[in-house]
Amino acid sequence: MNISYFNGKYLPKDEIKISPDDRGFLFADGIYEVVRWYEGFFYDMNSHVTRMKRSLRELRINWSEAETFQSIAKDLIVQNKLENQQAMVYLQVTRGAANRSHSFPLPETTPTVYAYSWGFTPDLLSKENGIKVMLKEEIRWSRCDIKSIALLPNTLSFQEAHENGMKECVFVRNGLINEGSHSNIFFVIDNTLFTHPESNNILSGVTRKNILRIAHETGIKIREEPLQENRIRFIHEAFITNTSSEVAPVIEIGGNTVGEGVPGPLTRVISEIFDTEIKAFRG
Amino acid sequence: MNISYFNGKYLPKDEIKISPDDRGFLFADGIYEVVRWYEGFFYDMNSHVTRMKRSLRELRINWSEAETFQSIAKDLIVQNKLENQQAMVYLQVTRGAANRSHSFPLPETTPTVYAYSWGFTPDLLSKENGIKVMLKEEIRWSRCDIKSIALLPNTLSFQEAHENGMKECVFVRNGLINEGSHSNIFFVIDNTLFTHPESNNILSGVTRKNILRIAHETGIKIREEPLQENRIRFIHEAFITNTSSEVAPVIEIGGNTVGEGVPGPLTRVISEIFDTEIKAFRG
Repeated sequence: MNISYFNGKYLPKDEIKISPDDRGFLFADGIYEVVRWYEGFFYDMNSHVTRMKRSLRELRINWSEAETFQSIAKDLIVQNKLENQQAMVYLQVTRGAANRSHSFPLPETTPTVYAYSWGFTPDLLSKENGIKVMLKEEIRWSRCDIKSIALLPNTLSFQEAHENGMKECVFVRNGLINEGSHSNIFFVIDNTLFTHPESNNILSGVTRKNILRIAHETGIKIREEPLQENRIRFIHEAFITNTSSEVAPVIEIGGNTVGEGVPGPLTRVISEIFDTEIKAFRG
Repeated sequence: MNISYFNGKYLPKDEIKISPDDRGFLFADGIYEVVRWYEGFFYDMNSHVTRMKRSLRELRINWSEAETFQSIAKDLIVQNKLENQQAMVYLQVTRGAANRSHSFPLPETTPTVYAYSWGFTPDLLSKENGIKVMLKEEIRWSRCDIKSIALLPNTLSFQEAHENGMKECVFVRNGLINEGSHSNIFFVIDNTLFTHPESNNILSGVTRKNILRIAHETGIKIREEPLQENRIRFIHEAFITNTSSEVAPVIEIGGNTVGEGVPGPLTRVISEIFDTEIKAFRG
């Protein structure tokens, strides 16, 4: 039985019922976060909490107990006996339930807070052998920096990739490569690491931030600028990052083989340092 | 007590509970329609049904009982004793509940179907005196032709208008005026009626379609092309259309007074023909 969190209570997931008036259901008016548990600790929980607060602020959702995210997540791990394995916690906060109206409810509603956890099996094969990704013209809105639940464009695009045997769909806006449907993307050209800078077009990924830190500490040259799609043929390596994939090498993008068609050497170095840090945290 | 519809059953709205696994709640993976009841008939139900089916098709949601929309809507009117007043019926169909994954669930899930009705009081003041609308750079995704529940950008934009004392937010993409957050917009220049053509940038409004029909039948010159924002100062009249507002004259747009700052003559003519048609249907 999966014990989940709903508006201040822990109860079986099956017993959680959302009101049809919930603005998360009617308007996608809410945000979410996914944090990863590594048999003993959450990876960079502080960054997730900071980002969650920013998303809430941008949507003007006032969850007065935002500070409890970390303890809710820990409670879910403990109550579901996930301490000694890898796991994930998903948390969603919506503006709450109110009569349907495009404008924000008055008086202000109490946000709906929902969280659940599950045991997680990493996709080691993708990490080892690399993945193929497709390219597609950007279809999302212009505030991809907010981790909102308005994910319809992401699911449609990911499904398209999935049906074409690809593990991610990467968006191109005005000829510039943004990010994937649920990942950031990095490129290596002449030993320099490229990734899209923080902007309203990409989500500021927690793994992205840590990979940039690792690259910086390792003395790898970094250029936070978007890659032009027509420069794809000049890249030597590529990888995507997110909480569940960590670092997944990209061996084909938009039909173009990347480098030798195997995970690149700089990608390997960065990925191994990431893994080493996790092991060190784990103690 | 409001009797609503949920997955084949009629029950009090309070008893309807959505699963937290519903893809409408997690991903905005669903569509909706709102139909209007005029004391005896639904306005152009066929167009709403056709559009709903198109939205479902575009998202590849297979609601096998899509044909029942009209009878569900009618049942809700009857069960809630709304026959002899103006009313609305809202219907939402999501891809259903499944373990959270960006790709579509396999095996395919049964869609979630939810509908409810309410007595409706038209905003006669706006219709009579006209409204002010704001202009804003487009922030929505590139498939606004699908009537999806991924409405976060619409709510945020409408709220901005609302807080500035405006009745609608109208989006401008690449210098061209698209439509409002929940309405289409028309302009009159030299007795010619302008509105954005059907495209992936606007929703093909049922009222929009009928206004174009009325204009055509009345011999008004029509140009279905987007208006450039910098031509705003040349417009003589403007109005928005949607199911709840019907025709609402625009007397100010983006800070610019439209014409004499009162509802324009062609707008009046079109609005009156619309009203006359409703009265004729009502018998």
